[in-house]
Amino acid sequence: MKIITISREFGSGGRELGKRLANELGVPCYDHEIIEMIAKENGFDERYVANVSEKSIEAAYPLTIGHRFSMPTLQLVDQSIRVAAAQRQIIENFAKKGDCVIVGRSADVILAEMNPLNIFVYADLPSKVQRCIERAPEGEDLSRNEMERMIRQIDKQRSQHHQMYSDTKWGNKEGYHLCVNTSGKEIKELIPALAHFARAWFGDK
Amino acid sequence: MKIITISREFGSGGRELGKRLANELGVPCYDHEIIEMIAKENGFDERYVANVSEKSIEAAYPLTIGHRFSMPTLQLVDQSIRVAAAQRQIIENFAKKGDCVIVGRSADVILAEMNPLNIFVYADLPSKVQRCIERAPEGEDLSRNEMERMIRQIDKQRSQHHQMYSDTKWGNKEGYHLCVNTSGKEIKELIPALAHFARAWFGDK
Repeated sequence: MKIITISREFGSGGRELGKRLANELGVPCYDHEIIEMIAKENGFDERYVANVSEKSIEAAYPLTIGHRFSMPTLQLVDQSIRVAAAQRQIIENFAKKGDCVIVGRSADVILAEMNPLNIFVYADLPSKVQRCIERAPEGEDLSRNEMERMIRQIDKQRSQHHQMYSDTKWGNKEGYHLCVNTSGKEIKELIPALAHFARAWFGDK
Repeated sequence: MKIITISREFGSGGRELGKRLANELGVPCYDHEIIEMIAKENGFDERYVANVSEKSIEAAYPLTIGHRFSMPTLQLVDQSIRVAAAQRQIIENFAKKGDCVIVGRSADVILAEMNPLNIFVYADLPSKVQRCIERAPEGEDLSRNEMERMIRQIDKQRSQHHQMYSDTKWGNKEGYHLCVNTSGKEIKELIPALAHFARAWFGDK
């Protein structure tokens, strides 16, 4: 089975990279599909799942946890745990179905036993801010400073999410087979080479 | 100008990777050639140059520096500075001659203004030990422990050498465009994909 996982810094273009790479290789890419499936199978709202799916259980409730546990809070934590469990299960099921690319959600460690090719996508902060500005939905006018804060915040959440599954630190190159710096690059320019790399990695001619 | 620099952990196969990549791309690879030229142009012994060429000035004299400076020591430090200066000059001259691959010696930062493609090659410790054992000249029978100590020691020297030129830490993925994990891989299997990547990086079709 040839599984490729894409871990990525927010704004690095990792999601686009995953999608384009899957396309080039002719395999499915699972990204938002994971959220949709969790929401559907568990009767949750997609926006809620999207919000907690890459946070650690604690980070999902930064304000209430550590204070007193009221019943609604416990219910929320319980829901968050259910999302994490469902996510793990869905990622494993997708991977068992056949060759694919999976973006984010700590699939690199969740699927470790299947020997995926783990790619980490990163970029310098100015490039990430630029990419966010270009992609931002209309009306979401964050200042450059707010944008940088948001990027740091989301990456911190991803790092904490990763910590639930692994001792290896999120983003440490040791945890990946290939780390790609997309600073100042068009993602699509990198795809043929990465597809080549992936094929070589799995021993395809 | 298309310059590729290869920084590498000791035992990761980076030297072989640089040589094979240059071969695949049809450009020269400068590695030991740098040492030979420094030695020739300055009348130094090659083994001496090889010994100090990837150490910081201080690391080249761990025993004497910090104690008192006798004349011979000062001469040695002076020589070491001359090697560093010559090395910088030679790397710049090689790069100006045309497209090439340069292995080690902090060429990534020395040549920063020429916008090289900077690749970092790394591997997990067992893979590095294994590679060292396979490549060790006969008679050099280090135990596994001694081998691990040597690997750590040499990488520490390379890191210190890098620090003479840059604030970015040696081996931090942020300082490179591509980081390749060679654990358990044959270097030659990775070459076509890396050549593809390099061509795409420089905008060649």
